[in-house]
Amino acid sequence: MYNQTISTLLNHRSIRKFKDQALSEEQIKLLVECAQAASTSSFTQSFSIIGVEDPLIKKQLREISGDQSYVEENGYFFVFVADQYRNQQIGEHIDTDTSVLDTTQRLIVALGDAAFAAQNMAVAAESMGLGICYIGSIQRDVKKTAELLQLPEFTFPVFGLAVGYPDQEPEKKPRLPFTSIFHKNVYRKGMSEDELKGYDQQIADYYHSRTGGNRDETWTGQIAQGLSAPARMALKPFLEKQHLGRR
Amino acid sequence: MYNQTISTLLNHRSIRKFKDQALSEEQIKLLVECAQAASTSSFTQSFSIIGVEDPLIKKQLREISGDQSYVEENGYFFVFVADQYRNQQIGEHIDTDTSVLDTTQRLIVALGDAAFAAQNMAVAAESMGLGICYIGSIQRDVKKTAELLQLPEFTFPVFGLAVGYPDQEPEKKPRLPFTSIFHKNVYRKGMSEDELKGYDQQIADYYHSRTGGNRDETWTGQIAQGLSAPARMALKPFLEKQHLGRR
Repeated sequence: MYNQTISTLLNHRSIRKFKDQALSEEQIKLLVECAQAASTSSFTQSFSIIGVEDPLIKKQLREISGDQSYVEENGYFFVFVADQYRNQQIGEHIDTDTSVLDTTQRLIVALGDAAFAAQNMAVAAESMGLGICYIGSIQRDVKKTAELLQLPEFTFPVFGLAVGYPDQEPEKKPRLPFTSIFHKNVYRKGMSEDELKGYDQQIADYYHSRTGGNRDETWTGQIAQGLSAPARMALKPFLEKQHLGRR
Repeated sequence: MYNQTISTLLNHRSIRKFKDQALSEEQIKLLVECAQAASTSSFTQSFSIIGVEDPLIKKQLREISGDQSYVEENGYFFVFVADQYRNQQIGEHIDTDTSVLDTTQRLIVALGDAAFAAQNMAVAAESMGLGICYIGSIQRDVKKTAELLQLPEFTFPVFGLAVGYPDQEPEKKPRLPFTSIFHKNVYRKGMSEDELKGYDQQIADYYHSRTGGNRDETWTGQIAQGLSAPARMALKPFLEKQHLGRR
């Protein structure tokens, strides 16, 4: 069952430091082609990809993301957009009412299409020896991101994808135990005390070995940290303004 | 740049007829492991996978999906769940306020995590010679689907993934032209008349050759068909009931 693709998938780790080497035009085209080959709901292809090359835009996206250097310093930077605008334009073009595009179904479909395409690109890049990092934090100031990329109504910038030649070799981060993610037939409620403790220990060991004992963190500690305050509260009004998921 | 993984990605086509041969326990485990290896927002791993083996549940999911036979007849059937319930349980366990879990950010994160994991599984399956088909239509009666799988609050069944040994060899469906999906620096509004016509012709040719001339359809025709009526209007109230994306 094991093959090159499985190895690529199982070897994933996010790369946050890239060499100063740009991707070639051929690499970019092939990555986009792989992204496009992914499944798409009802064949609507409800996504777009922005290739951000303008240094000024990259710099500003870096600021929006909370100054993550690899948003600016990478081999190439893509932004994946959930896109019902194309469908809206086609509807107008063929004189069809497009009012259904503001439904929750269409928002979910576009988010899925964008994510399938992005994950295909991520896998393709890693198979070519490149590294990737998703940048969800372009949503920290989603209005500004949309302005920079001149996104029209019916679109939503879901995440960036920094791609490039890795300049670091992070260890693979251990995932939750199989039984915590996988449920048979029906949802099994809650992880046991033992499962949580065991996994916390694994993650603590991971950070210890990675930082020579300097980082002391557990997974539940990280989850708790994430629960401390609501984030990106501009997302809902922004989606509303974009006519997405209104009903 | 080409390698086995790129070939797998570029060769994708959805499979809607599977041989009567079940996946092995090892295959299922490896597929889930590949799914788990995908990127996950802030390492929250906000998704779950339900392996649906019970014939009665599969039969009912088939009905919900609008009687798509391959929901019932396949090598294995997975449902991917956007899951903030695990985080809610962890928060309660460590006595932390979990009220942030009802934000739009958390819904978008969970949808993304589920989609990244699913796409990894799809790619893994295809690399092993298996075929896949996403089943978004388990959302046609989302409340019933959630009841069948006993999904708790803070969860949402995003799609099914039918996996199995292909019993058909469909042609690859041509994707939109590169220039219609890919934008440089800023969003380019609208496809030109020529782009639309050219692509419509490509899709018409695809259906002609696939059906011996019996299916006469264009892409814009399909898009128009999809615009004819709003669909799955129960999604928004369902998400609300699940405490997802409330603010």
